[in-house]
Amino acid sequence: MPANRSEQSRRAILDAAISMIGELGYDNISIEAIARQAGVSKQTIYRWWPSKGAVILEAATESLGTVVAIPDTGDIVADIRSQLTGILELITTTGFGPAYRCLIAAGQSDPDLLRALFDQIIEPNIEDFGARAALAQQRGEMRVDADWQTLRDLLYGVVEYRLFHSMSLEPEYIDGILEIVFHGVR
Amino acid sequence: MPANRSEQSRRAILDAAISMIGELGYDNISIEAIARQAGVSKQTIYRWWPSKGAVILEAATESLGTVVAIPDTGDIVADIRSQLTGILELITTTGFGPAYRCLIAAGQSDPDLLRALFDQIIEPNIEDFGARAALAQQRGEMRVDADWQTLRDLLYGVVEYRLFHSMSLEPEYIDGILEIVFHGVR
Repeated sequence: MPANRSEQSRRAILDAAISMIGELGYDNISIEAIARQAGVSKQTIYRWWPSKGAVILEAATESLGTVVAIPDTGDIVADIRSQLTGILELITTTGFGPAYRCLIAAGQSDPDLLRALFDQIIEPNIEDFGARAALAQQRGEMRVDADWQTLRDLLYGVVEYRLFHSMSLEPEYIDGILEIVFHGVR
Repeated sequence: MPANRSEQSRRAILDAAISMIGELGYDNISIEAIARQAGVSKQTIYRWWPSKGAVILEAATESLGTVVAIPDTGDIVADIRSQLTGILELITTTGFGPAYRCLIAAGQSDPDLLRALFDQIIEPNIEDFGARAALAQQRGEMRVDADWQTLRDLLYGVVEYRLFHSMSLEPEYIDGILEIVFHGVR
């Protein structure tokens, strides 16, 4: 069945991309090497993706998967903690962390790639976070005038900061973040 | 006077590095091109710095200069606002922003460069911030049990996040950050 075969190839390509980038880095892998590892032809990859960056971005986006969804148990702090814990685990134990670092690095001199990453990873997260924050505000878990967009920037900003500077990302770290953004240091 | 001449060359090299990286990007400049622009020989550069990354890192560190110092007027919120405003201005109006982006990008696949950047830019900031936070805690401007290290990560993390994702960095944005980290969203 061609549909299954093509889904199998697609998965093999994305799996190859995410695992190879962790080992070799963005500059040292090529569409050719990904194709070889996935057992497909270069043409198969170019039929679906315009560039190496696009393949790796899709591999990273897929590996984020449902981890990035913010649950709704009615407790906003617990829900954000649970989502951030999942993201930290993904970053520290799978190819996602290295892939994301490479994509951001490459994106600093490739505005199209950076824009695509924003559209595929950041923008959906802004929508999801905004919806969850609105519920929290209706329920009185967050001040109605709280700036949830800046709150979101702070939460993911600090995670990326520690990732890009190769600082440790222990799950306990999340509690310190949540303590400050919910209660303030004053 | 040789000492003056060599200080002049050093300045010319660092100025060339910071201005060229903003225009051309990390990958597209070479020690040779920096030397040509600065009017010195390649050997002069290699006598002082081991690599392109080292020159650019020193240029970025120098251009940060005193902007990164946190003043002490007795009002911690105003003092952090003043420092962050200076950093945002430097990022958005000088070669520092593009240079820093390039260094972080290159650092993702160059652990020595990333470590040098940490030692020269992040570590001194941690010490400076820690000293200012201790005063704020003694004076009751910040809770004594507040985790100033995580507070620091949050403040600079969000600035880097918006820089690396090419999101706007307006000075007014700082007020939103300070409101959350000092008072919390609860």
